[in-house]
Amino acid sequence: MSNYEAIKLDIANGVATLTLHRPDRMNAFNELMMHEMIAAFDVTDADDSVRAVIVTGEGRAFCAGADLASAGDTFNYEKRLAGRGVEFEEDRVRDGGGRVGLRIYESKKPVIAAINGPAVGVGATMTLPMDVRLAVEGAKMGFVFAKRGIVPETLSSYFLPRLVGVSTALEWVMTGRVFSSEEAKERGLVRSLYKPDDLLPAAHALAREIADNTSPVSVALSRRMLLDMLDASHPMEAHRLESRLMVARGRAGDAKEGVTSFLEKRVPAYPDKVSTDMPQPYPWRPTPAFKE
Amino acid sequence: MSNYEAIKLDIANGVATLTLHRPDRMNAFNELMMHEMIAAFDVTDADDSVRAVIVTGEGRAFCAGADLASAGDTFNYEKRLAGRGVEFEEDRVRDGGGRVGLRIYESKKPVIAAINGPAVGVGATMTLPMDVRLAVEGAKMGFVFAKRGIVPETLSSYFLPRLVGVSTALEWVMTGRVFSSEEAKERGLVRSLYKPDDLLPAAHALAREIADNTSPVSVALSRRMLLDMLDASHPMEAHRLESRLMVARGRAGDAKEGVTSFLEKRVPAYPDKVSTDMPQPYPWRPTPAFKE
Amino acid sequence: MSNYEAIKLDIANGVATLTLHRPDRMNAFNELMMHEMIAAFDVTDADDSVRAVIVTGEGRAFCAGADLASAGDTFNYEKRLAGRGVEFEEDRVRDGGGRVGLRIYESKKPVIAAINGPAVGVGATMTLPMDVRLAVEGAKMGFVFAKRGIVPETLSSYFLPRLVGVSTALEWVMTGRVFSSEEAKERGLVRSLYKPDDLLPAAHALAREIADNTSPVSVALSRRMLLDMLDASHPMEAHRLESRLMVARGRAGDAKEGVTSFLEKRVPAYPDKVSTDMPQPYPWRPTPAFKE
Repeated sequence: MSNYEAIKLDIANGVATLTLHRPDRMNAFNELMMHEMIAAFDVTDADDSVRAVIVTGEGRAFCAGADLASAGDTFNYEKRLAGRGVEFEEDRVRDGGGRVGLRIYESKKPVIAAINGPAVGVGATMTLPMDVRLAVEGAKMGFVFAKRGIVPETLSSYFLPRLVGVSTALEWVMTGRVFSSEEAKERGLVRSLYKPDDLLPAAHALAREIADNTSPVSVALSRRMLLDMLDASHPMEAHRLESRLMVARGRAGDAKEGVTSFLEKRVPAYPDKVSTDMPQPYPWRPTPAFKE
Repeated sequence: MSNYEAIKLDIANGVATLTLHRPDRMNAFNELMMHEMIAAFDVTDADDSVRAVIVTGEGRAFCAGADLASAGDTFNYEKRLAGRGVEFEEDRVRDGGGRVGLRIYESKKPVIAAINGPAVGVGATMTLPMDVRLAVEGAKMGFVFAKRGIVPETLSSYFLPRLVGVSTALEWVMTGRVFSSEEAKERGLVRSLYKPDDLLPAAHALAREIADNTSPVSVALSRRMLLDMLDASHPMEAHRLESRLMVARGRAGDAKEGVTSFLEKRVPAYPDKVSTDMPQPYPWRPTPAFKE
Repeated sequence: MSNYEAIKLDIANGVATLTLHRPDRMNAFNELMMHEMIAAFDVTDADDSVRAVIVTGEGRAFCAGADLASAGDTFNYEKRLAGRGVEFEEDRVRDGGGRVGLRIYESKKPVIAAINGPAVGVGATMTLPMDVRLAVEGAKMGFVFAKRGIVPETLSSYFLPRLVGVSTALEWVMTGRVFSSEEAKERGLVRSLYKPDDLLPAAHALAREIADNTSPVSVALSRRMLLDMLDASHPMEAHRLESRLMVARGRAGDAKEGVTSFLEKRVPAYPDKVSTDMPQPYPWRPTPAFKE
């Protein structure tokens, strides 16, 4: 299917499944996995047949966190770069999880986390920019950074309070607690829990609900609108953007087909494609550079 | 009571009831309804006897969404304006739902949605800038835009994630799912559910709880403060605004009456009026222009 | 233990307990309490032995609100300042609760509210910038400002919508309702409820969960990161900050000890101290001045 080593990417029936694939290491996150995940989202964005992306883990874990093979030097970027002969510039080093997180944030396709086992550290935070989190019962999760002497990463300082509220986010991060997917569901991080055999079918059912009924361009625009308007400074910003996009989409083939098929009570066949038909003013908010 | 056609507006005992009133069209939203809703909120803001506004629908629906009488051209603003001989300027067209939404956002009186039946499309999104949503059991709701080939409107890209969290908002918008008011309550969109005969009495009870106990000017200021501080860039902004308003209100007749009546264990009779006594620095954040 | 009059501050076993201490006045808030609370957080921040702060009330109340000894003039700042011969400048008067709230917001140590009885007005709002709220069953709470003719204070216009969602925040503030800690828990303001004898032990258990497992510097940074990123204007801001701090912390003694102790399955002994080892770029967002 591909040349990936640390992940697998399978595309079938409109759904891409990205499987973290270092099962002997509990799918621990490393630099190769980072690069391959980013590349995979480039593939799913470019492939108009893909309507949704499911992210899950091979074997018994989702992702146990950063690979700790370097032990006490794991997070010492200066030493690690020196070991490769790369010059260390303190303010140019980027958190690898954050790079993946930003790529997921920018995805034109919905991303569903299917948390099949332990999701700890970056294994937990990488799910935050995903759209919906489903999990198996009894999965262990944790934002354990304060227990390792480091800090929250992978955009979790941005996303976690927005997903579960600032109080739960602070409690989880400041205790470093390892908690169950049941607590995650109770606090709103995980949408629903499943027996292991039911997890991927549930993720596929949600992906199909999107794929079978909606305009791909409308979904891509909607995702971008909602995520961007989290940062709006007045509802007028939403009104301006929504107005521009309603005009642009309202005269597109998809809108004609969407309303006509609804009135005719038939399944719609949307003509527009994400690869070629994203309307002006998309992209209305390009990602800022890391170094300003 | 009025010259409205697409709505009714009844004011009695301190409570205004705005009824969407196209029952033969399931109260489908059209341009006339837009203008009349905006006009109605101008009336309720100017009338000091009005302490709260209830919005509900005539007949079996709350609002079934945009009127689809123009079928596949419903959202084609260029064609629709051409049909009226109006020049089409792409970046001057405003989403009609958004204009209503901004008017509700600016209301000086609390707005309670009493969702008496299906609330779909703009029928769902127009409730988002309202303060509290009550609904009948089993009402169908849906942010169905992606199923029609269009995009979220009526400020929903701003409000929906702030009301139900970004994950639920994305799921609802990207599936275009029609869901029950039970799911709406579970996810936090609707505060409580009622049998049909109990819905309006519950809305009135909430309106009376506001009307019978609070200072009208304090309510108008509080509503504005909370909505505006959603967009604050630091808690210091809240501290500055709260300090200014505490000084202004602390020496007003309402504060003297509020504390004195509390100490004397009697019902307060607030002297200040919304029409004349909104203190400096109100309005501290005028709505920006649509075209910058 | 100290020279405080309106509060008590006890520090033992890594936990500071700040007790509001005007039991004959139901711990009503006054200017002395304001100054002493601010001073107490200066002490807990400077004392590296303190890993968490618990705030509770002496006697049967948590805090019944502002001291109403001045009756109808309680909130008349001009009169109150004139009574002391202090010149009144309208735009220099600061809400006293807000000054306490900002000090709690800036705390380097987690702050746990142990709400042992009625928490009304500023007694309710002062808990909002705290990290987690625990309460006794049946405690009365209320954001009663509109019932006194005044407005929300102590940063509540900023924090309340972020803690319970804008709809519940508006309902509570616009009704001025006095509600039970059960409603507070249902709406997400209070994390969990206890019998009176179990409240402080629960607060201490949460404080110990932080103290026994985490790096003090990591906790202080994490708290600051999450609170500050509530105001981010793009996730890239989080990525930049997280990257800088991961580099700074990743080579610190705490990270080495955190990972090593984890791999060796032993209790960590973190070398870094909040008083001396907060890394660059801390403080990355100093509190703005009140008067710009």
